[in-house]
Amino acid sequence: MKVIILGGDGFCGWPTSLHLSAAGHEILIIDNLSRRNIDNELEASSLTPIRPMGERIETWHKLTGRELRFLNIDVSRHYHRLLTAIIQYKPDAVIHFAEQRAAPYSMKSSWHKRYTISNNINATHNLLAAIVEANLDIHVVHLGTMGVYGYGTVGMKIPEGYLNVKLEAENGNLYEQEILYPANPGSVYHLTKTQDQLIFGYYNKNDQIRITDLHQGIVWGTQTEETRIHESLINRFDYDGDYGTVLNRFLMQAAIGYPLTIHGTGGQTRAFINIQDTVRCIKIALENPPMLGERVKIYNQMTETHRIRDLANVVASLSNAKIQYIPNPRNEDDENNLYVKNDQFLSHGLKPVTLADGLLEEIVDIAKRYSSRCNIDKIPCVSYWNKECQKNSKLQN
Amino acid sequence: MKVIILGGDGFCGWPTSLHLSAAGHEILIIDNLSRRNIDNELEASSLTPIRPMGERIETWHKLTGRELRFLNIDVSRHYHRLLTAIIQYKPDAVIHFAEQRAAPYSMKSSWHKRYTISNNINATHNLLAAIVEANLDIHVVHLGTMGVYGYGTVGMKIPEGYLNVKLEAENGNLYEQEILYPANPGSVYHLTKTQDQLIFGYYNKNDQIRITDLHQGIVWGTQTEETRIHESLINRFDYDGDYGTVLNRFLMQAAIGYPLTIHGTGGQTRAFINIQDTVRCIKIALENPPMLGERVKIYNQMTETHRIRDLANVVASLSNAKIQYIPNPRNEDDENNLYVKNDQFLSHGLKPVTLADGLLEEIVDIAKRYSSRCNIDKIPCVSYWNKECQKNSKLQN
Repeated sequence: MKVIILGGDGFCGWPTSLHLSAAGHEILIIDNLSRRNIDNELEASSLTPIRPMGERIETWHKLTGRELRFLNIDVSRHYHRLLTAIIQYKPDAVIHFAEQRAAPYSMKSSWHKRYTISNNINATHNLLAAIVEANLDIHVVHLGTMGVYGYGTVGMKIPEGYLNVKLEAENGNLYEQEILYPANPGSVYHLTKTQDQLIFGYYNKNDQIRITDLHQGIVWGTQTEETRIHESLINRFDYDGDYGTVLNRFLMQAAIGYPLTIHGTGGQTRAFINIQDTVRCIKIALENPPMLGERVKIYNQMTETHRIRDLANVVASLSNAKIQYIPNPRNEDDENNLYVKNDQFLSHGLKPVTLADGLLEEIVDIAKRYSSRCNIDKIPCVSYWNKECQKNSKLQN
Repeated sequence: MKVIILGGDGFCGWPTSLHLSAAGHEILIIDNLSRRNIDNELEASSLTPIRPMGERIETWHKLTGRELRFLNIDVSRHYHRLLTAIIQYKPDAVIHFAEQRAAPYSMKSSWHKRYTISNNINATHNLLAAIVEANLDIHVVHLGTMGVYGYGTVGMKIPEGYLNVKLEAENGNLYEQEILYPANPGSVYHLTKTQDQLIFGYYNKNDQIRITDLHQGIVWGTQTEETRIHESLINRFDYDGDYGTVLNRFLMQAAIGYPLTIHGTGGQTRAFINIQDTVRCIKIALENPPMLGERVKIYNQMTETHRIRDLANVVASLSNAKIQYIPNPRNEDDENNLYVKNDQFLSHGLKPVTLADGLLEEIVDIAKRYSSRCNIDKIPCVSYWNKECQKNSKLQN
């Protein structure tokens, strides 16, 4: 298939580009290098030494004979360059990662909130408007988030996107209806993904665009089969307070002999998936598109759930690290349960990489190996969700 | 109260500004005059001769001694001018009309879709971000639309924003939950209002912003008690295919002796409200804000529902006009029922102006009186919702 990958330079986009290229798909990467530019802004960088796009593409070509094409386009702002690329390339599918993807970054200031809203909503909408204007039948695969659901409802597993509810009619009869799972975003970043869902629903209904939306959990792990081939192909490992996920920050702290810092009680339960499974899931979604006229297809792209303090205990036991509890910069419940359905990917044959199997490798091969590149000042999260959270953090410090 | 009115030069914003000023509130209008600029783009204009903002304000001051302040700011693009205005003026409330509000305009082309998304979402989000940054307790009153609901569910009245549903737990028990009514927008314009709802929900939850969202029906009528005082204060009357509502187009056609053009079967049922009731409802909402910590307050701001072909028959009987059926440029159901709850405004004492009482005045005092200013070429709607609608229209013509 001919595939355009928007955001193909990022943490999920790059290994996806390689995985699909290795599988024989023709790949055009479109990216404005915003993730590298945000590194400059934050004075932080990937622990792993990621290489410029030109070197990445050249290395891949030398080692595999396969070609990756690349265009530097800001999808949220340069509509006509995107439209032209779509008309000229005529892709079978577009995989859309071109969004600001860190919740703490989205909450740093008014500017960051506004950037995240404008960048993400315009990127998604520009893509859909361009597909309609190009008048081509293109399957859109979008990286969404489990965060659109909030933290579930009492007594039931979170379904894959759609929820059956019963409504009471005026005459007292109950009747069933299927609805999009009610949105409950936890940050401005998550808010944009709930707004994306409405864009997808509308363009699917009005213009019969075929769309798959992947509600992904927190991704852990760094390397995939393809990024491991050569160090010039290595993937990002973010450990800073904005872009580093909770697990990466624990791994980094463990590797350099610092206590693992838990926000709040650590009773938050989250869904996880390994980066190797992410790229496999995207390949499955790409190769199993919805039919023309079918509603938006939604998968829960996660493989296990864990409480944050349990994760900390596992990392501590593998590394002899200590644990420290600090005030939570986020406005969220201290404790929550999370039960999630993920039957669709399992039925397509996905065999998940588990945290139990992969964590030690992350500590040894990534966090410890590159620990001399770590700037420990960058690990704490200093984005506060609201003025209360900021006050609580200051009181304790 | 000190009130900022975003979009205070528009069809609903201008009479609201006068109504609240007459009631003794201190008013600052913020508007970028986009509605007048779109008149230039569409080569169409209000049937009624609307006057420049400077003349409107001067006339109001001369006749009533009351002052209206005005700033020309694009709320969607000039965040820091908006923030500065909020910090300096310290309003008790901001009424937010600053969105592109015509469904057909939002569907004219990719550019118009993209403008509507970017303008409306950024305007709403900039306002919320600015209120958080200013750290002031400001009540936001927003003009939403009945269109967020789609056309209702079988066998029940559309509630005011929130819906009680029953969910089946894993153990088979049913339990109740209240959710935001599932969004089902009918155009890109309506889509933006469903996205606004998510912004409101998030900022209300995370930052305790007090918000009232008014889900308004189709507004008919031109004048209010205040705009009638002097011709320099007259309100807009739009009859063109993009901004003219169905009723205004019928009135215009009747006034100039043309057949009333019905899109499709005319079996679409819609909710209506008179402009005089709109300004009354906004005053009620303004003066009855939600408590701090209360969820977003949602009112259905409409007073009656009618099928389009029934409306056409009423206008025809008042004017001896003929009726002509033409292909529907919109992608929507031919026939729908619509039952809506509006108990909250009625319980605040609203006594609706009915179509039966007010229609003749609209024909005589507005459509006929200013009919020499009408450009009949502008009446047809030539915005097609998708390629199918466009094809159907061409086949018949």
